[in-house]
Amino acid sequence: MDEIIYKPIGIIHTPHTNLEKIPIQPVFAKGITGEVDVYEEFSKGIRDLHGFSHIYLFYFFHKAHEVNLLVKPFMEDVNRGVFATRAPTRPNKIGMSIVKLNAVKDSRLFIENVDMLDGTPLLDIKPYTAKFDSVNVLQSGWQDDISDDVAHTRGKREYEK
Amino acid sequence: MDEIIYKPIGIIHTPHTNLEKIPIQPVFAKGITGEVDVYEEFSKGIRDLHGFSHIYLFYFFHKAHEVNLLVKPFMEDVNRGVFATRAPTRPNKIGMSIVKLNAVKDSRLFIENVDMLDGTPLLDIKPYTAKFDSVNVLQSGWQDDISDDVAHTRGKREYEK
Repeated sequence: MDEIIYKPIGIIHTPHTNLEKIPIQPVFAKGITGEVDVYEEFSKGIRDLHGFSHIYLFYFFHKAHEVNLLVKPFMEDVNRGVFATRAPTRPNKIGMSIVKLNAVKDSRLFIENVDMLDGTPLLDIKPYTAKFDSVNVLQSGWQDDISDDVAHTRGKREYEK
Repeated sequence: MDEIIYKPIGIIHTPHTNLEKIPIQPVFAKGITGEVDVYEEFSKGIRDLHGFSHIYLFYFFHKAHEVNLLVKPFMEDVNRGVFATRAPTRPNKIGMSIVKLNAVKDSRLFIENVDMLDGTPLLDIKPYTAKFDSVNVLQSGWQDDISDDVAHTRGKREYEK
């Protein structure tokens, strides 16, 4: 089928400049703050966003070039299907993070719990809502076997050092 | 900045063939089943997915051609910034649904709570996990003022008729 073409609507600024030291998920990046600059031509679209305490950011893994359909998750040493993980080695390099939205000023969003690389191109923003997104999960697959301690230690990676 | 090019990794089959009658979110599409066919070349990537009760599907809103930065959500009659809604009139037409995963057979996923159009091109799959995605939301913005009844009636749209 045809190619699908997207263009960045903004850029994400974070303290993470080293790919090897980024926390792997927002839950392992508690308290780390960043900013999103939405490009002027799209800034009308962020109206009403300030009322949400959490938002989804969708972005392009711009530094991930490999595709591996099988990948070792950061949290364990077993190969898993890439779609059963959040690893960036997926065919379409779409990243997603749920971040806390602290404030909106003009076309800048002040966010917390950031786990993406500085300079990441932003593709979309959606509100995280209690009605749609808090799912009562029955099974979390291979992750159910990972203790919170191990998840935390390996999920944060080098960030605290 | 440069264009970002994605290609479908599969296709989503659902009973929804009329754009005007699709439930607006999985929570309003309870019990409606569909299938995802992951293209053969990517099927190795769905290994281990069967262990998750819920997954995120990311897809291209292939029938949405308009961009409106301000849009009336289905649930109310007030214009909202498009990034504070899930409306398809966003600049980058990335759709996301959290669906129940009932079974995996070969490269076909059997899913439930489907709210996307039949024939929708699939871009990515990620596991929904208790550890990463069940966020304790403080505020859901304008949605906090919509009663569950109104949300349900308007969210289902014409589906039951």
